[in-house]
Amino acid sequence: MNNGKGQSVIERMREQALAFFHSAIEAVDPIGAIHRHVSMDSGSLVVSGTRLELDDFDRIWVVGAGKGTAPMAQAMEGLLGKRIFEGAIVVKDGHGLPLKRVRIHEANHPIPDQRGVQGGEDILSLVKRANDRDLVITLLSGGGSALLVAPAQGVTLKDKQEVTRLLLACGATIHEINAVRKHLSRIKGGGLARSAHPARVVSLILSDVIGDDLDVIASGPVVPDPSTFHQAEEVLKKHGIWEKVSKSVRERIKRGVNGNIEETAKPGDKSFRNDITVLVGTNLQALEAARKKAEFQGYRTLILSAMVEGETREAAKMHAGIAKEIIASGHPIPPPACILFGGETTVTLQGKGKGGRNMEFALASALALEGEKHVVILSGGTDGTDGPTDAAGAIVDGETVARARSQGLDPLDHLRRNDSYPLFQSLGDLLITGPTRTNVMDVCIMLVRDRNGLIE
Amino acid sequence: MNNGKGQSVIERMREQALAFFHSAIEAVDPIGAIHRHVSMDSGSLVVSGTRLELDDFDRIWVVGAGKGTAPMAQAMEGLLGKRIFEGAIVVKDGHGLPLKRVRIHEANHPIPDQRGVQGGEDILSLVKRANDRDLVITLLSGGGSALLVAPAQGVTLKDKQEVTRLLLACGATIHEINAVRKHLSRIKGGGLARSAHPARVVSLILSDVIGDDLDVIASGPVVPDPSTFHQAEEVLKKHGIWEKVSKSVRERIKRGVNGNIEETAKPGDKSFRNDITVLVGTNLQALEAARKKAEFQGYRTLILSAMVEGETREAAKMHAGIAKEIIASGHPIPPPACILFGGETTVTLQGKGKGGRNMEFALASALALEGEKHVVILSGGTDGTDGPTDAAGAIVDGETVARARSQGLDPLDHLRRNDSYPLFQSLGDLLITGPTRTNVMDVCIMLVRDRNGLIE
Repeated sequence: MNNGKGQSVIERMREQALAFFHSAIEAVDPIGAIHRHVSMDSGSLVVSGTRLELDDFDRIWVVGAGKGTAPMAQAMEGLLGKRIFEGAIVVKDGHGLPLKRVRIHEANHPIPDQRGVQGGEDILSLVKRANDRDLVITLLSGGGSALLVAPAQGVTLKDKQEVTRLLLACGATIHEINAVRKHLSRIKGGGLARSAHPARVVSLILSDVIGDDLDVIASGPVVPDPSTFHQAEEVLKKHGIWEKVSKSVRERIKRGVNGNIEETAKPGDKSFRNDITVLVGTNLQALEAARKKAEFQGYRTLILSAMVEGETREAAKMHAGIAKEIIASGHPIPPPACILFGGETTVTLQGKGKGGRNMEFALASALALEGEKHVVILSGGTDGTDGPTDAAGAIVDGETVARARSQGLDPLDHLRRNDSYPLFQSLGDLLITGPTRTNVMDVCIMLVRDRNGLIE
Repeated sequence: MNNGKGQSVIERMREQALAFFHSAIEAVDPIGAIHRHVSMDSGSLVVSGTRLELDDFDRIWVVGAGKGTAPMAQAMEGLLGKRIFEGAIVVKDGHGLPLKRVRIHEANHPIPDQRGVQGGEDILSLVKRANDRDLVITLLSGGGSALLVAPAQGVTLKDKQEVTRLLLACGATIHEINAVRKHLSRIKGGGLARSAHPARVVSLILSDVIGDDLDVIASGPVVPDPSTFHQAEEVLKKHGIWEKVSKSVRERIKRGVNGNIEETAKPGDKSFRNDITVLVGTNLQALEAARKKAEFQGYRTLILSAMVEGETREAAKMHAGIAKEIIASGHPIPPPACILFGGETTVTLQGKGKGGRNMEFALASALALEGEKHVVILSGGTDGTDGPTDAAGAIVDGETVARARSQGLDPLDHLRRNDSYPLFQSLGDLLITGPTRTNVMDVCIMLVRDRNGLIE
């Protein structure tokens, strides 16, 4: 069963899945993402259709934070060159790139450190100098919350680290955590936009969160904060950590509740007037790019969701049920079918093996689809890193389990021990991309052909 | 926000979901299912397009087993009347119905008992009397495995009960369990068809298993058995229970492995020549019926899969991700959208509450979709019974969690304790159908409208 080039159908499908994944990553590459949404046109900066006459502005400032912001800043320097007056960004250690007009701060991630505070202060002092004839371009991407730090008055970095640790340990939701930290910060929860007022603020954002919630990404420095001091207090009390956080945190929140400290910027606040906020890269944009490529190759395509959550191996079983149904009845779409979905699932560790959620998804899929013909599943992290490994994920088919067994490996045991990496390493089925300097969570590509399905 | 009849959009959507669910059940109602696939036409019995001239047959026998076979037999009596020469079926206690030509055996389920053996013997003795001028109509539905019992020579009912218990306890798969029990039975694994040979066998099957595998439903009495005595031995040894099963079981299997007992009927066996086997009711057929109704009401529809498996609450999260994506971006299909799927998920018990997998799915969905507007999710068992309750499932929307809280209920706590029934009872959101006498597993219906979405 080959296509006359000495290549089996499955080999060809695996190659295609890989090519579609690379299209997905390309679409959210920070430089490409900026160029797809921002361009220069005879003296105007065009941001997602809105023209900004650059002559209207005295100065252009570029600030930002996040793992992917160095290449985003490079792209902006490429577009604006010397028109950028000054700038500063905070990136994770090792994520810097040579920039001409924008200063780079490297800081610790995911636990914020003093260098993050320095970066935050630098950025705040820059945007405070901006006036109503200035343009502030803000670049944000995943990791921005930890990298962009500016403790509120009376609160120390240590206080903030401690309260974050307590909130994480008590099982608070991301919205609860954010309600607290936004009220302990001068930059989160709209603080950056407020400091930049009355300058015009254009924010370009790469989203690494389910649902692309603007007030969640990097803790929402440029958008209104719907939460209140009162809610922050409730969160700490509800989780029984009100007495455990430092006295300065408690006092700040109490003063806020009593109206003695200004609330974070709320919807309708003048700071956001005329602001432009654009999601330049999202999981859905990555899926759309992969889909386009798959359609070009003759696949029927369906994007299921860019918001897949839940326990990894269970999500894999669910999606395997869809692959089986395509084979059995042609639902939800008949073969040749390319089903795309993305998001971020969660691995509840049961063993001490080496792996990541994408490899685990691939392994659970291989087990659920054992023996199925002409099914290929690729699961990969768009940042190129799956768990603490050098792989982005893995790629499997209906023969993967049999091949593993023939090498003396027990796939079910590897799954039980969360030990997917060594298995895929042994099979040569790791997905290796190297670091991509972007992150829009994970992308999964499922290809299903019919029995006679030769390619192209 | 109402449609001018004093009814809110959500109320109307809930009604629609309920109507679609009833269409699903109607489509797999045993009597309706038989009539959709079998009819009489001027002296011929037409079975899914194949005409059987009744004058070609001397006698017609009707046999079968399963929870839904009494109404199936009623339907066949309605079609064939006195042309049925004799018949016998085995149903679960309390599942009998008045029949004219077909004897009813009631037996225990799910643990087989002596009455099941009597039923099995009755059926075997009937079909053995059939010759090459006879027609044997076999009716099978869920529960048939436990109800249709005919221990092989030298093996007792007790031996079989014991080996089944051991296999269930050691975590063997359904295919492994079947490989063993088919080799300890005279009726399973093609045994019924073999006994009926050389009569013409027409089998009408309601499927209650994922994938509608004919050799799994009721342990495949009328289809070839791909498994062998050798595999049965391997299964018992692999799971370390070879020494635990009774001596008579071990000896039978050893004699089979040595070729001293005839193997079960294999693919190509003459017993299956000219046999007609029709799935008269499946999960997918139920989904298709609901889909048709939803399309008629103006929904865009998508059947995701009739093979949904996995941990219930995780499957709910996954599907909530699809609902959210429909709202956010119109993927996989834009609103007004009706997403349909079915199968059988699994609840890993964590508490001692009262509930079932459909109610648990609904509760987990309600939590995942808290606050979403214009989303309704219905999850129901097609047999009308979800877990040990009088409800088939439940129906929820984006306001369900808020309504529960306003009544002082904690939905997350109810989910944690597997205690969905009391919560939905309190909210009036139980799905109550009463026993339906059919079973094609579970059906889930997800409706999503856009913000302005008034109905019709």
